Amino acid sequence: MIELNYELAQKVLDAALAKSKALGLSMNVAVVDAGSNLTAFARQDGAWLGSIDIAMAKARTARYFDMPTEQLGVLAQPGQPLFGIEVTNGGLVTFAGGVPLTIDGRVIGAIGVSGSTVENDQEVALAGQGELSRIPSLTT
Amino acid sequence: MIELNYELAQKVLDAALAKSKALGLSMNVAVVDAGSNLTAFARQDGAWLGSIDIAMAKARTARYFDMPTEQLGVLAQPGQPLFGIEVTNGGLVTFAGGVPLTIDGRVIGAIGVSGSTVENDQEVALAGQGELSRIPSLTT
Amino acid sequence: MIELNYELAQKVLDAALAKSKALGLSMNVAVVDAGSNLTAFARQDGAWLGSIDIAMAKARTARYFDMPTEQLGVLAQPGQPLFGIEVTNGGLVTFAGGVPLTIDGRVIGAIGVSGSTVENDQEVALAGQGELSRIPSLTT
Amino acid sequence: MIELNYELAQKVLDAALAKSKALGLSMNVAVVDAGSNLTAFARQDGAWLGSIDIAMAKARTARYFDMPTEQLGVLAQPGQPLFGIEVTNGGLVTFAGGVPLTIDGRVIGAIGVSGSTVENDQEVALAGQGELSRIPSLTT
Repeated sequence: MIELNYELAQKVLDAALAKSKALGLSMNVAVVDAGSNLTAFARQDGAWLGSIDIAMAKARTARYFDMPTEQLGVLAQPGQPLFGIEVTNGGLVTFAGGVPLTIDGRVIGAIGVSGSTVENDQEVALAGQGELSRIPSLTT
Repeated sequence: MIELNYELAQKVLDAALAKSKALGLSMNVAVVDAGSNLTAFARQDGAWLGSIDIAMAKARTARYFDMPTEQLGVLAQPGQPLFGIEVTNGGLVTFAGGVPLTIDGRVIGAIGVSGSTVENDQEVALAGQGELSRIPSLTT
Repeated sequence: MIELNYELAQKVLDAALAKSKALGLSMNVAVVDAGSNLTAFARQDGAWLGSIDIAMAKARTARYFDMPTEQLGVLAQPGQPLFGIEVTNGGLVTFAGGVPLTIDGRVIGAIGVSGSTVENDQEVALAGQGELSRIPSLTT
Repeated sequence: MIELNYELAQKVLDAALAKSKALGLSMNVAVVDAGSNLTAFARQDGAWLGSIDIAMAKARTARYFDMPTEQLGVLAQPGQPLFGIEVTNGGLVTFAGGVPLTIDGRVIGAIGVSGSTVENDQEVALAGQGELSRIPSLTT
C-alpha cells in the first residue's frame, strides 16, 4: 500500500513549484501526509509571508475532510450548512488552493498552495496533485 | 437527582454509534456533562480527522447555551443577533449536530456528532439524545 | 497490518478503566491512533476535571516521541538535554501516565491516563497497554 | 548582499538531510530566513511526529536571538538570567539543534533539526549550516 513518504511529497511539491514558476508566480506550498502531518514545505522568493500559514492550513483542511477546500468553502458560506466551520480545529481555510492527494480512491495526504489569486492557488495545487499520475510505480 | 455519569454517557454514545452504523456512516461522537466537560468520546473507523474537534465543540456549544447548535446557528447568521459568536470560547460550532441532554427539562449534558452531512450528524445526535428515554431508572 | 481501530481502542480503554476501578480510583483515559488522533476517551465519575486535558496530552506525547512520557520526563529535567520541551507542540506532558501501544515493535497509537498519583496513572496506563497481548488475533 | 532565498534554503536543507541519512537517522528539518519565516521544511520517513513543531521552533528560536539554541539553553536553566524564556513567543526551544545561518558574520536565517538525541540533532544542523561555505558564489 502506497503511503505519502518524503520522496513522493517532494515530487508533488516540485511539480507545484514548477507550475508556479511557469505562471510567473511566487507561492507557498505545503504537503501533508495521511495523518495530516507536514511532510514538505517550500516558500518561493518573495511569496507573501501571510501565506505560509494559509498554505499549511489549506493542506490540513483538505485532508481533515478529504475534499478540496474550495468545495468546503461552498458549504461554509452564510446560510449554508457549515457556516463558521473555519474557526474549528485551530483555524481552517475555506477557499480554493487545498486538494487531497489520492491513490486509487484512497486519500494519502493533501497539498495546500497560497500566494496569489485563489484561481492561481488552485491551478498550482492541481499541478502538484496531477504529479501522482506521472509516477511509474503508481500507475502499473 | 440524576447526573450524567460515565455509565450514562457511554449508553448515549453507544446509541449514537449504533445509529451511525445503521446508516452506513463513520462518525466522531462526544458527550459532555453538566459542567461541559468531556465524559466520553469515540471515533469510528475512517471518520474525518477534522471532525474530532468539531464533535467536541458541538457538544460544548450545545451545553454552553442549552440549545441545539442548529438553533444557535440561526442567530449567528449575518445580520442576526449573535453574528460572530463562533469565535468566542476558543471556538464554537453553529451548525447542526450538537444537542443538549435533558432529564425532566433539566440539562444534564450534551452530545456532539460530526462526520457527515449536518442532517446525518443531527440524526445521529438525536439517536444519542433519545437513549435517555429508554433508561428505566429515568422514566419511573 | 494491524491498525488501532475503534474496536481495539475501546478494548484498551476498558482494560484501563477496569484496573482503575479495581484500585478504587477515578481516572481520565485517552487513546490515540498512529496519527496521534483521539480515538476513544472516558472520564470515570468524579475524576479531576484538570486531568481531561492531561490524559489526552499524555497519549499525544507518548505517540509524538514513541516513548513513555515518564522516560521523556527524565530528559526534560533542569540541566538535562530536553529541558523545556513541554512548551512545544501546544503543550506536552513529561511525567508518567502515557505509554505507546505497540504491535510487534511497531507503534500503532498510545494511551494516556490522568487522575491520581503518577504511579497510579502509570499502572492504569500499563493495564491498557497490556490488553494488546490478550487479543487472540494479535498473538497468533 | 546575499539573502537566504529558496534555492539556498533547499541546499542547506538537503545537506542536513544527507547527513541525517548518512548517520542512519530520520529527522525533521526546518529552514527560516532573516525574517524568521519558514522557507523550507522536510520530514524524513518515520521521523517523530512531535519533532515537526520542535524543528520549526528551533530554527525560529535561533534566528530570534541570533545564537544556537544550545547556548540560549544555558541561560534558560533554573537560577540563570533567562529562566522561563521558553514560554515566550508562542513557545521557544532551549536545547541543541537550532543554529543561525551566517554569511560574513551577518545572520541570514537559521536551521532547526529534531528527531534524535540533541547531539545528533546538533550534528545534522551543523551539516546544514556548513553547506553555506561550500557554495562558490558565497566564498569568492
